[in-house]
Amino acid sequence: MSRIKFMPSGRTINARKGKTIFQIAREAGIHLNTSCNGVGTCGKCKIKIIEGKVDQLTSSYSLPQTLQDQGYSLACRTVVLSDCTIFIPQETRLLGSELLEERGEIHLTEAIDRVGINPRFRRAYLALPYPSLEDNLSDWQRIEREAVKIWPGRQLVPTYRVLQEIPSLLRDSDWKVTADFFDRGDALLLTNLQKGKKTIGPFGLVVDVGTTTLVVELIELSSGSVWGKTSRYNPQITYGEDVISRVIYARQEGGLSQLQREVVKAIEHMAKKLIEESNLSPDDVSGIYVSGNTIMLHLLAGIDPSFIREEPYVPAASFGWWEDASKFGFHLLEKSLVYFLPCVASVLGADIVAGLLAAGFDEPGPLRLFIDIGTNGEMVFGNGDWFLACSCSAGPAFEGGGAKHGTRVIPGAIEEVKIDRETCDVEIVTVGDMPPQGICGSGLIDLLAELYLNGIIDRRGKFDFTCKANRLRKSNGDYEFVVSEGEDKTKDITITEADIDNLMRAKAALFAGIRLLIQTGNVSIEDIDKLYIAGVFGRYLDLEKAITIGLLPDIPIDKIEFLGNTSLLGARIVALSQDFERKAKEIASRITYLELARSSRFMDEYVSALFLPHTHLDLFASVAGKIPKKKKGGSC
Amino acid sequence: MSRIKFMPSGRTINARKGKTIFQIAREAGIHLNTSCNGVGTCGKCKIKIIEGKVDQLTSSYSLPQTLQDQGYSLACRTVVLSDCTIFIPQETRLLGSELLEERGEIHLTEAIDRVGINPRFRRAYLALPYPSLEDNLSDWQRIEREAVKIWPGRQLVPTYRVLQEIPSLLRDSDWKVTADFFDRGDALLLTNLQKGKKTIGPFGLVVDVGTTTLVVELIELSSGSVWGKTSRYNPQITYGEDVISRVIYARQEGGLSQLQREVVKAIEHMAKKLIEESNLSPDDVSGIYVSGNTIMLHLLAGIDPSFIREEPYVPAASFGWWEDASKFGFHLLEKSLVYFLPCVASVLGADIVAGLLAAGFDEPGPLRLFIDIGTNGEMVFGNGDWFLACSCSAGPAFEGGGAKHGTRVIPGAIEEVKIDRETCDVEIVTVGDMPPQGICGSGLIDLLAELYLNGIIDRRGKFDFTCKANRLRKSNGDYEFVVSEGEDKTKDITITEADIDNLMRAKAALFAGIRLLIQTGNVSIEDIDKLYIAGVFGRYLDLEKAITIGLLPDIPIDKIEFLGNTSLLGARIVALSQDFERKAKEIASRITYLELARSSRFMDEYVSALFLPHTHLDLFASVAGKIPKKKKGGSC
Repeated sequence: MSRIKFMPSGRTINARKGKTIFQIAREAGIHLNTSCNGVGTCGKCKIKIIEGKVDQLTSSYSLPQTLQDQGYSLACRTVVLSDCTIFIPQETRLLGSELLEERGEIHLTEAIDRVGINPRFRRAYLALPYPSLEDNLSDWQRIEREAVKIWPGRQLVPTYRVLQEIPSLLRDSDWKVTADFFDRGDALLLTNLQKGKKTIGPFGLVVDVGTTTLVVELIELSSGSVWGKTSRYNPQITYGEDVISRVIYARQEGGLSQLQREVVKAIEHMAKKLIEESNLSPDDVSGIYVSGNTIMLHLLAGIDPSFIREEPYVPAASFGWWEDASKFGFHLLEKSLVYFLPCVASVLGADIVAGLLAAGFDEPGPLRLFIDIGTNGEMVFGNGDWFLACSCSAGPAFEGGGAKHGTRVIPGAIEEVKIDRETCDVEIVTVGDMPPQGICGSGLIDLLAELYLNGIIDRRGKFDFTCKANRLRKSNGDYEFVVSEGEDKTKDITITEADIDNLMRAKAALFAGIRLLIQTGNVSIEDIDKLYIAGVFGRYLDLEKAITIGLLPDIPIDKIEFLGNTSLLGARIVALSQDFERKAKEIASRITYLELARSSRFMDEYVSALFLPHTHLDLFASVAGKIPKKKKGGSC
Repeated sequence: MSRIKFMPSGRTINARKGKTIFQIAREAGIHLNTSCNGVGTCGKCKIKIIEGKVDQLTSSYSLPQTLQDQGYSLACRTVVLSDCTIFIPQETRLLGSELLEERGEIHLTEAIDRVGINPRFRRAYLALPYPSLEDNLSDWQRIEREAVKIWPGRQLVPTYRVLQEIPSLLRDSDWKVTADFFDRGDALLLTNLQKGKKTIGPFGLVVDVGTTTLVVELIELSSGSVWGKTSRYNPQITYGEDVISRVIYARQEGGLSQLQREVVKAIEHMAKKLIEESNLSPDDVSGIYVSGNTIMLHLLAGIDPSFIREEPYVPAASFGWWEDASKFGFHLLEKSLVYFLPCVASVLGADIVAGLLAAGFDEPGPLRLFIDIGTNGEMVFGNGDWFLACSCSAGPAFEGGGAKHGTRVIPGAIEEVKIDRETCDVEIVTVGDMPPQGICGSGLIDLLAELYLNGIIDRRGKFDFTCKANRLRKSNGDYEFVVSEGEDKTKDITITEADIDNLMRAKAALFAGIRLLIQTGNVSIEDIDKLYIAGVFGRYLDLEKAITIGLLPDIPIDKIEFLGNTSLLGARIVALSQDFERKAKEIASRITYLELARSSRFMDEYVSALFLPHTHLDLFASVAGKIPKKKKGGSC
């Protein structure tokens, strides 16, 4: 029998020699990702041998050489011959269907395969010769002499923090250490030194600072494996739900540093959890890669964002640089270096630049449109050589805000709505099949489309009382439609005419932005080869309905792809590859940003889009066929 | 009449138009350096026109073009035509005779002339276009866009601290700012931003951290002008006079950071004084250049120096790197960057590397010997291509330590001694002509030579009682010679046989080191083309006497040159020129350091040197002629 230890959980299982790791894991109830069921063809069950003797079965799938060099192999093709320590990367631990960013992950893997893994941080094991009277170089020079053998011709520089630790650490470790270096371009910086030999790492923390949600991933930079992922609300919410109220708070005495402290504390709290779960130490985390919108980055960096909200809307920083984490108040990770992904403009942040990387916009190709829908609808249109971008203020309509019974995506949020044409009955699907609590963004879009297709609202979004819908009523001076009945009338979940107005304005702003980009690019909607939708929002969106209401352009649905949290994915690509760090800056600098604040063309497009699906029905040929003939005196 | 304002004092004088600045200054009692008395041939009265209209008279001396470009001209050739603001550099303010480092200054000027002024820091005035909706780049990109016009092709990076200030500073200054950049090699780092246009600067602080004395200079990096200089005792003295006791103190809980705080505080205190005297702000100081011995640098950097004193004598760091000043506890100068000059070994510090630069050792040439005499006698021998170095522990003998009436160079210290052959009377010269307080290093060397030349001590340094010197006596079991009589016997200043032993051991150690270097270099003493003596000690040294006692090798006196505080001068060269920063590292890496700790050859040489002047008299041919025939029963 052998003892097989599975990392990062540390769970240890006794198993017969000669079994595959896939079999051993399955028998122990550890489910590894697979679609070939362990016969070596799908390549999804990759694991890393940290310690122990194994044998490899033949396989029709072959792992990239760079992964093989780092000890990766397929669990179903790896037979254990001794006690082993096995590391299961995040992507192998999760079943494919559980991945929020499945398509995005595929893009990322393809992108990394294209350029190879080449992070800024490098780890080296150094067994230093003992000092003697004949060889009494300084401690640092002793390290330098060995490290330069690995990277000939490179200039090596110590960081002050590490220098302070060097004398005792070298002597306590019998002169055998693992050194982490940061490639600054002109020199390799020694950023960390640990006792003995580390077979894994170095690690990076990938952070998406959303206005609402923080997401943090722990990744092994040398392999690209995700070791853990966690998310939580951005604690800055206490100081304002939206970015504007946070900017206002930041202007108060001490407000900016308070907001900075909150978000740094939250990131470190999440990092601590991930580091502990993986049995690592904070010293293993060399780099922190931060993506997010321009204001969130200013707040994390502690830089005054005031002028972002005042004409002519100028941010202080466009980022795209490295700094010591300690400067921003990181304590646990004080030795790390932080990279802020580059921003383009006040309302076009690093999250969008990251998104473009995740969507493969760094490669020249056909015309593609990238949309990230939130409070603002940011969109970029281009072919990899040129990029046009704009940002339309959609308000919080698609996040469930601005509607009487609107809600975020919480358990019980109505996410799908279907209205029966004959009976006018409303079928709803809620998140987690919980009792309905409100209507989230995707539910509102469904509802708008269903109300329109069933003639309950007209093209202007106004209720048509000629249809005598029994779910239509007047409440507090506004007309509303009952979506779901509660115990009594006051508990009903409804949509009001004002809610519909809000939605109409939001979808009109987004579509006007799309039209403006396409017209400025001198092409037409049919020329769009791909439409990528970023963000969690996209995941729940019914595309057909989104086209029906005129939110998305009328293009074949197979041209549309959801990419998930591309802000996070893009930051991960940057973490894994210096080429992508460079590409991020290139893309950011090549984007032509269209300022809509005073654009009369945008206003014209906006007004034209304030109809269902649009003033110009010829733009929505596929919708035209679905619009019902007006039905008089129906049962609704 | 015009109003002429002299900086940095700020003194303003009314003067008739058409007069030269030299005349105006002289009439107002401001003495400018000159040796041609204002006729335009010596080039010593250079000043800088900060503001105002002037005319230039023809001159037979022409200032280097780089200085002219910066507004420098000769005071005696500059005629005022309007109100003017004139800056008088330190070297023009001081008379040549007051310069402690006259020879060293000349070397420095030659060196800088050779490579040109090319500091790491560059200052640029940027008048930024106002942002608009059509041009709403981030604040940082607006700065970058203008700066890159000055330095095309360079990558520009902001530092975090400056970024935090950018938004309000740009708007408060009507978008007109002076920016300081640090050339990191791969990128230009924006390290400081100030409102409006600065016509002077950027500035650097050059610091020599001596075990006993701190010296700080304020220099304008763009011109090389010294704006001020100050010195004081190293406050670490409270924690131990010599380096060893400080290393011991540093090992105590909190000891290291206490020593670091003390020296940083003292440097900032001195910096504050210099900055205020020059009407500058701390923000004008971009770089701090630190030289000193290896232990002093460890203590300033807050790095444990313990292992320097334990076999095999290994320092933690060899320095030669830049770091943020804030990391070392600088507050006033928290935005500055610090450069620590490179060290070679535990007992061969940055002060010696700096010294070699100041002595022109970066240039290939004849065989030269560089000696810095203090508690340790550090010496380097080479021809610019190769360098041999060693460090001999001389003890504090030449600093007046280890002698019953020894003293540092203080007012009243006996610095010269002459014994009358016939009467045995002792003539003394004291520092500042004050009543004698003790004997300093140069006085002790004089005394030893005089005692020997007058037959009062023999070649082993023992008193010869056959000469019946009436100044010889026994006190507390030891024999002593009365140098200066006090009010009563207990106030006499004497030298004891034990003192002489100490001196003999010290000079023997130094000469043994010199011999070892010369033998290892496979040459003989006659091959030495130049002997440079660094340090304040050298200034008071009577060379003939130093040769007489066998401290210095017997070479023609015109081959010997005093250079003054070469640690400071070398640091200044590094501040003014990136080439010299590189050269410093090159020299440091090319030095072959001979470890004497267990060298039997050194021990042999040492024993041979324990005689006056040496066991082998043929090594001191010039001394042989002076040694008196033994005089029996003289009057001494």
